[in-house]
Amino acid sequence: MPAGDSAVRTGPWAVRDGLASFGEPATVLLRALDDVFTDWGTRSGAEQMTFPPLLSADDLRTLDYFRNFPHLGSPVSRIRPDRLEAHSSRTTVGPVPARDLADAGHLLPSAACYGCFLHFSGTRTETPLRVSTAAQCFRREDRYDGLRRLWGFTMREVICIGSAEHVRDHLEHFHGRLAAFAVDLGLPLSRQPATDPFFQKDGARAVMQLLAPVKDEYVHTDGTAVASMNNHRNFFGERRSLTYAGKPAFTGCVAFGLERWMHVLNERFEGDLRTAATAVRKAGEGE
Amino acid sequence: MPAGDSAVRTGPWAVRDGLASFGEPATVLLRALDDVFTDWGTRSGAEQMTFPPLLSADDLRTLDYFRNFPHLGSPVSRIRPDRLEAHSSRTTVGPVPARDLADAGHLLPSAACYGCFLHFSGTRTETPLRVSTAAQCFRREDRYDGLRRLWGFTMREVICIGSAEHVRDHLEHFHGRLAAFAVDLGLPLSRQPATDPFFQKDGARAVMQLLAPVKDEYVHTDGTAVASMNNHRNFFGERRSLTYAGKPAFTGCVAFGLERWMHVLNERFEGDLRTAATAVRKAGEGE
Repeated sequence: MPAGDSAVRTGPWAVRDGLASFGEPATVLLRALDDVFTDWGTRSGAEQMTFPPLLSADDLRTLDYFRNFPHLGSPVSRIRPDRLEAHSSRTTVGPVPARDLADAGHLLPSAACYGCFLHFSGTRTETPLRVSTAAQCFRREDRYDGLRRLWGFTMREVICIGSAEHVRDHLEHFHGRLAAFAVDLGLPLSRQPATDPFFQKDGARAVMQLLAPVKDEYVHTDGTAVASMNNHRNFFGERRSLTYAGKPAFTGCVAFGLERWMHVLNERFEGDLRTAATAVRKAGEGE
Repeated sequence: MPAGDSAVRTGPWAVRDGLASFGEPATVLLRALDDVFTDWGTRSGAEQMTFPPLLSADDLRTLDYFRNFPHLGSPVSRIRPDRLEAHSSRTTVGPVPARDLADAGHLLPSAACYGCFLHFSGTRTETPLRVSTAAQCFRREDRYDGLRRLWGFTMREVICIGSAEHVRDHLEHFHGRLAAFAVDLGLPLSRQPATDPFFQKDGARAVMQLLAPVKDEYVHTDGTAVASMNNHRNFFGERRSLTYAGKPAFTGCVAFGLERWMHVLNERFEGDLRTAATAVRKAGEGE
């Protein structure tokens, strides 16, 4: 990544170890995308909320997180107090060795909506709740691929908590929004049922997924999934005592992977991210 | 944090384990603050950039990170491949045990500017560089205190890379901005030399800090430091082969702790965060 003078500053982005840096045009485009998706949420009655940047292992365990995808997890530790001094005088290179790490009580989020369902645990509502939230999400992968598959990425979600019908209507509303937006931007997207990556094939949730499609992805012609519609049925409602009209609530969300949108828009606009940002804002305003 | 119905949604925020959740008025206020500080950066000629959400242990070692504040660090690990199966079938509560963790090659950032100096490593510039960036930052502390001392928080920084004089002028320019903004908002802030928390007292950097003040904090009457001016002299320039006009560059930054601004504005506006957000936008536009 090191480079002389202006190359670093004017290049659109750089990726190393599945982690990305962005110059100004890319930073502005990420913001334009998030503004559009946030605005869609607000217009659909969603409240903007922010959830913790780390989630507790105990909370995630109640959502079958470790049962379904422990391999994706990024546990956050600290250097053991009795190893601090040794560590501060260490001069060799390399990672912080496992023997110097304390137990990890928290993990980085792998999706933005977990924090929402944990937050609303124990809530009894008689009206549907809609929430818009963004999070820096992290998924450990065997290999990373530019902006298409990052370890750390930004996800905006618009979540619905209510009846099965509320969730279905919510997802269909955003299906319309997304389809029109893609057409206006000249992005060919197709809606496809996903078998992954959210629910691992041999995990507990995968059984449910075979009974009813719960996740559709919006896939660009180059294979990049830029958004997904997720119908969790009443899984989170049951696990977190979150009820709508006296019964475990149904939940669903539309999720936007902002860096993946940048990847496909960079192709579409031939590297002119400033023009892409203008087009995104214009298309986002359309009805 | 669990609560019935509207309390969770309309309360301004909740904090647990040094990690915060925000309702809509607080989310909107955080955004208003970031917009104002970003705009100041843009008007001063700074480019908006985004740096990786995790930093490598090797890179941090070149900045004396482990020598000065290893206790603040949040290393990010993964579950060891040979422990995945055991972990997925585990039913006991508690953290991910250290024996299940792999070596940690990366850490969460403790300040937004590290990513910038790492990114510009090896750069030779003949004109000063100004960069505006925000990051989710993390500092392990013995105890946390509401929004005043969080484990995870949001920092916006405007960074200058150039000569000693460029850095001095940059910091004085933002001193004027900050002072006028505080007056317009009715926030009594005083500028105080800091001996902490950025540079540990017995660390290598602390020696330099005794030779010349390198960090001033803007402290509210209740003791909350909401911003700081940091003059790193040519430390990052030397360590990362970043030169201005053929010599190790001088660097400095103004840093804004967004959640701490929210804490003091909540007091100032007696819990009315929507009015606070309007006042922030208005004061931010003033010259």
